[in-house]
Amino acid sequence: MPTVLLVVTLCGALSIAYAIWATQSVLSADQGSPRMREIAGAIREGAQAYLARQYTTIALVGIVVFAATWALLSSHAAVGFLIGAVLSGIAGFIGMNVSVRANVRTAQAASRSLGLGLGIAFKSGAITGMLVAGLALLGVAGYFWVLTGSLGFAPGDRTVIDALVSLGFGASLISIFARLGGGIFTKGADVGGDLVGKVEAGIPEDDPRNPATIADNVGDNVGDCAGMAADLFETYAVTVVATMVLGAIFFAGQAVVPTVMTYPLAICGACIVTSIIGTFFVRLGANGSIMGALYKGLWATTLLSVVGLAAATWATVGFGDIGQAASGITVNGLNLFVCGIIGLAVTGLIVWITEYYTGIGFRPVRSISQASVTGHGTNVIQGLAVSLESTALPTIVIVGGIISTYSLAGLYGTGIAVTAMLGVAGMIVALDAFGPVTDNAGGIAEMAGLPSDVRRSTDALDAVGNTTKAVTKGYAIGSAGLGALVLFAAYNYDLQYFVAEAEAGRGYAYFQGVQPDFALTNPYVVVGLLLGGLIPFLFGGMAMTAVGRAGGAVVEEVRRQFREDPGIMAGTSRPNYARAVDLLTRAAIKEMIVPSLLPVLAPIVVYFAVLLIAGKSEAFSAVGAMLLGVIVTGLFVAISMTSGGGAWDNAKKSFEDGFVDVHGVRHLKGSEAHKASVTGDTVGDPYKDTAGPAVNPAIKITNIVALLLLAVLAHG
Amino acid sequence: MPTVLLVVTLCGALSIAYAIWATQSVLSADQGSPRMREIAGAIREGAQAYLARQYTTIALVGIVVFAATWALLSSHAAVGFLIGAVLSGIAGFIGMNVSVRANVRTAQAASRSLGLGLGIAFKSGAITGMLVAGLALLGVAGYFWVLTGSLGFAPGDRTVIDALVSLGFGASLISIFARLGGGIFTKGADVGGDLVGKVEAGIPEDDPRNPATIADNVGDNVGDCAGMAADLFETYAVTVVATMVLGAIFFAGQAVVPTVMTYPLAICGACIVTSIIGTFFVRLGANGSIMGALYKGLWATTLLSVVGLAAATWATVGFGDIGQAASGITVNGLNLFVCGIIGLAVTGLIVWITEYYTGIGFRPVRSISQASVTGHGTNVIQGLAVSLESTALPTIVIVGGIISTYSLAGLYGTGIAVTAMLGVAGMIVALDAFGPVTDNAGGIAEMAGLPSDVRRSTDALDAVGNTTKAVTKGYAIGSAGLGALVLFAAYNYDLQYFVAEAEAGRGYAYFQGVQPDFALTNPYVVVGLLLGGLIPFLFGGMAMTAVGRAGGAVVEEVRRQFREDPGIMAGTSRPNYARAVDLLTRAAIKEMIVPSLLPVLAPIVVYFAVLLIAGKSEAFSAVGAMLLGVIVTGLFVAISMTSGGGAWDNAKKSFEDGFVDVHGVRHLKGSEAHKASVTGDTVGDPYKDTAGPAVNPAIKITNIVALLLLAVLAHG
Repeated sequence: MPTVLLVVTLCGALSIAYAIWATQSVLSADQGSPRMREIAGAIREGAQAYLARQYTTIALVGIVVFAATWALLSSHAAVGFLIGAVLSGIAGFIGMNVSVRANVRTAQAASRSLGLGLGIAFKSGAITGMLVAGLALLGVAGYFWVLTGSLGFAPGDRTVIDALVSLGFGASLISIFARLGGGIFTKGADVGGDLVGKVEAGIPEDDPRNPATIADNVGDNVGDCAGMAADLFETYAVTVVATMVLGAIFFAGQAVVPTVMTYPLAICGACIVTSIIGTFFVRLGANGSIMGALYKGLWATTLLSVVGLAAATWATVGFGDIGQAASGITVNGLNLFVCGIIGLAVTGLIVWITEYYTGIGFRPVRSISQASVTGHGTNVIQGLAVSLESTALPTIVIVGGIISTYSLAGLYGTGIAVTAMLGVAGMIVALDAFGPVTDNAGGIAEMAGLPSDVRRSTDALDAVGNTTKAVTKGYAIGSAGLGALVLFAAYNYDLQYFVAEAEAGRGYAYFQGVQPDFALTNPYVVVGLLLGGLIPFLFGGMAMTAVGRAGGAVVEEVRRQFREDPGIMAGTSRPNYARAVDLLTRAAIKEMIVPSLLPVLAPIVVYFAVLLIAGKSEAFSAVGAMLLGVIVTGLFVAISMTSGGGAWDNAKKSFEDGFVDVHGVRHLKGSEAHKASVTGDTVGDPYKDTAGPAVNPAIKITNIVALLLLAVLAHG
Repeated sequence: MPTVLLVVTLCGALSIAYAIWATQSVLSADQGSPRMREIAGAIREGAQAYLARQYTTIALVGIVVFAATWALLSSHAAVGFLIGAVLSGIAGFIGMNVSVRANVRTAQAASRSLGLGLGIAFKSGAITGMLVAGLALLGVAGYFWVLTGSLGFAPGDRTVIDALVSLGFGASLISIFARLGGGIFTKGADVGGDLVGKVEAGIPEDDPRNPATIADNVGDNVGDCAGMAADLFETYAVTVVATMVLGAIFFAGQAVVPTVMTYPLAICGACIVTSIIGTFFVRLGANGSIMGALYKGLWATTLLSVVGLAAATWATVGFGDIGQAASGITVNGLNLFVCGIIGLAVTGLIVWITEYYTGIGFRPVRSISQASVTGHGTNVIQGLAVSLESTALPTIVIVGGIISTYSLAGLYGTGIAVTAMLGVAGMIVALDAFGPVTDNAGGIAEMAGLPSDVRRSTDALDAVGNTTKAVTKGYAIGSAGLGALVLFAAYNYDLQYFVAEAEAGRGYAYFQGVQPDFALTNPYVVVGLLLGGLIPFLFGGMAMTAVGRAGGAVVEEVRRQFREDPGIMAGTSRPNYARAVDLLTRAAIKEMIVPSLLPVLAPIVVYFAVLLIAGKSEAFSAVGAMLLGVIVTGLFVAISMTSGGGAWDNAKKSFEDGFVDVHGVRHLKGSEAHKASVTGDTVGDPYKDTAGPAVNPAIKITNIVALLLLAVLAHG
């Protein structure tokens, strides 16, 4: 398999090369007027200052965890943790640094044409996308290569598995902090800024008189860019690792282990290439549809990925019989190839469903716009209704994915489907990361007083960005739903392995006599499901509280500045932007710690609590059930929050061109209906950009910690 | 056991006697001025007209189901269905009819003293409470007696079990329609009326100029009284039936079966007596605390119920060893008694937690009030945060209940705990049903122009009613959470029984070769969990949409009346109240059908879909997992909605006496902060009174339908 690993590594390197090339291309673009550069400079400084503090704080936690991993597991695991954490941090750091430079260039380019603006913004997004996919793949494949090559471990060796799981853990830990911290910052700024600016003072979004406006733009970069990048890096790394681990366990003791562990890497390598090719298909057509331009890239990537999948299958497992899995199913390569295609199809369906629920022009968003006509209350009620309803179709798609892939090739088939789904992450992240750039470009255009048609171009880009942002979140959580079985299976098989070895007297004495019972008839399974199910709710509540608190602090700061210096509203004196940025930085860092630790500590606490009350077998059963419980509710909580929030946002946007209600009355910006829609948008902000997306890493980290807990208990 | 059944029946009859006595006592009170009678008459007419239409519609569905039950199962099952449905209807019908007569008498009594007002309102609530518990107990115990007595079936016979489950199904079917229809009516009126009245026109709640004001008061009676009564009737009946069925299966083939089936009935009989005694403890103390007065009754009931439990245990199973359950655990009476006490403790803890999350003066409500100071958006965000967070402690209490009762006496012990919990339902419903009476009394006082101190008394009663309403909902859903295991176990053991009989060649040929696998490692179990988990979300979304739509229609109707007749706002002409009532009646009946059918049809559709794709074993596994899935998410959805909604409502109320924020600023009624709190209250309305509480019958009905599906397949 070294040849395949070499090719995979080259694919990863290719994505880095693409990122370097694209960065140079973005940086060479015109930065516009001195005023624009000045504004962009303020945003850049704020974003860099925030990220520096965030990483410093995470590093403190990280060092403790690194030392603990080293002590409790092994140096290889600790190094894995470090690789995952550092590469995730690098992806977010570089992505954000490009983003804060691309914003002003996008604004300037948009003043020349929509197509040019789209070009720069998308290229900036693609840099983040390719870095996320490329670095994650390089990390996993490279470390796997080192471990099995120069260090000489067998691919299915526990040390290798533990090291890879630790790599996933490193990525997860960064991710949950970055998603939550960034989310609290960005939505604290957004909510606070909107409430005083739009609602109280009646000034438009991004008005330079609003002291929170720079903070709002900083937030787009640290939350929607860096936070999202860390999230997807984690999703990618954890999925690939889980599928590899599953392959190792599933075919344990067979010669095919190295191949089935390399296969997911090969799929990812192939899909990186197709994603890079796909970026060149993003081009504004004659009809001027931005969504159409982005879709061209996405569909090109998806179709080419079918070819890529075939190549990856051919180069590794082949299309014939591979071997018999532990469960007795004979797996063949053709079926795995079909599983991969199912993964791509699930991606496509989730993109389509998310667009339906969040896009302007479809029933859900129209129903929210219509409800705004009768007031704030009905707007929020209808938004919540849409948010709850939007969970149905994705769930059915995921259920379909589970059933079809499982019948084709067992759990490993499901793992391959999720891997293929995540394979195209480079492209999906590109679609998402382009959003904050256009959002910033709009802000810069407004603040620098560029002609209104520039703002119109950036607004058009931004509206599409709302939908693509919801798409990525639906995609990430959808992959978690489909991957639920894989992660739970990894836990289950790990546990079985340790118990079997212990019974055979081959070490792992801790597991002697353990008889985990995962049947729903076991009350500890129900207890685990309920406690796992609680995590997304409690976590979501904490995240919402944090945003509310941060937003409230911004409101008070802005009100204070307006009160103490009437020149601000008159436009004669400049507000103190830095104070709002600084306030939010401190608030976000402080607020992210406790909720982030909830999913990290939950499996450990539940394990030891049940152990104390009932015993080892019950404790392992409860923790296992917890892993599924957190997915069962997490899936719904995350989808409802992200789709509902996106729908609220676009319902608000629908008033900008005038919304025509069922009685044919046209409601414009500034109307009562528009004001009601702003309330919904404000509520949707932390839903879609803080609590909802952070549920995804919360699910993963609970699973990863449970796997590590097994490893530590086995080691101790 | 006939003696015990006789005593139980007498206890049931006692509650009916109490209801007759209390009704006479309420009706003999003074009805106040002609204007008050006129208003009360309009409310009464509207409520009766609505209920007549609702029951007619349900009857149409009911006749079809009755015929289907007869054809597919047996005449005994069909009669059971009829008993459950009719008695549930009667409890709601009488309760509501007392409620619409007690409202005006409460207003009149409150004009003399707070204590007298409380007395009439609580007595009216107690009538509904005792009818719910008494009729449910009489129905279950009476039918069980007839079946095992004059019809001569063995207590554990399938015919008896099917007939009792069908009785539960009858109650469930009424319940889901009544909860949803009543909830849509009441909250459509409330949301619509508030939006135009309070927010747009700036007139107070219950102002006679608001055309929706009579509809709002009608809604309190049809939703919060009749709908709630049907819900608790169902919870009571289903829990008792499920525990009896579990007893029959758990000790199958042992002589102790009749005893363990009678024990739950004896507990309920004893607790009805203690509930009746408890009502006499409700009396306003020297400190004038209304909540204190109600708590005196609740604590008296709870403490006396410990004695009642002991008596019931002594009279049936005794305190020694009872026998060995199917699972091998030896069950003894003392442990069952302790399980009952745990059930009462869970009730107490849930009451306490709910009061913390929804009561004025505690952190959660204060945090929402504080968030209102910074605007509509932060109010809603903080309310959602509280709503998500409020699920944590009840879940931990339920988990504690499951673990402790299961370790004491296995699943039957858990069943006994839930039975004891539901035993005191008469008292809990009394606390709840007093709410709509005081709410109405306030409305009548306002509309009839009574002195403002009367309104102050009724407002004080109403604020407490908000919390007690939330308490009942938390209690109902909490019992469902704890009862989850019991209902799932009934399904599992039923299935095992049919399979075993089929394997032994004793009929039930359909089940031959079925091997259900409820392990979480089975992907069909994960599929079932996800599809079950979807139900509360989709159902909640549909319910919210329905309220939004009904509320929007009311807004337009009220706006139209204001526009077409300016005399209404001037106070010179009277609005057309009947139109709003009529509009809502049609809307509620129309909107309740489709969502109600979702949980009814879901298990059937999932069974046949999975059967088609995979096979019988997989289909039974998926449906079984679905039953737990619907509880795992339903528990969180229901608690978050009902507690969150209650908190929003009381946050709004906190401004009525002036809310002092963290900076020491006092915000009064009419302030911007108060307006923001009204938006939250509006959002919370359908959360707490439509979608949230309807999740409870939705959970039960999914479980009951699954049990019936097994019975039908076994019969066919």
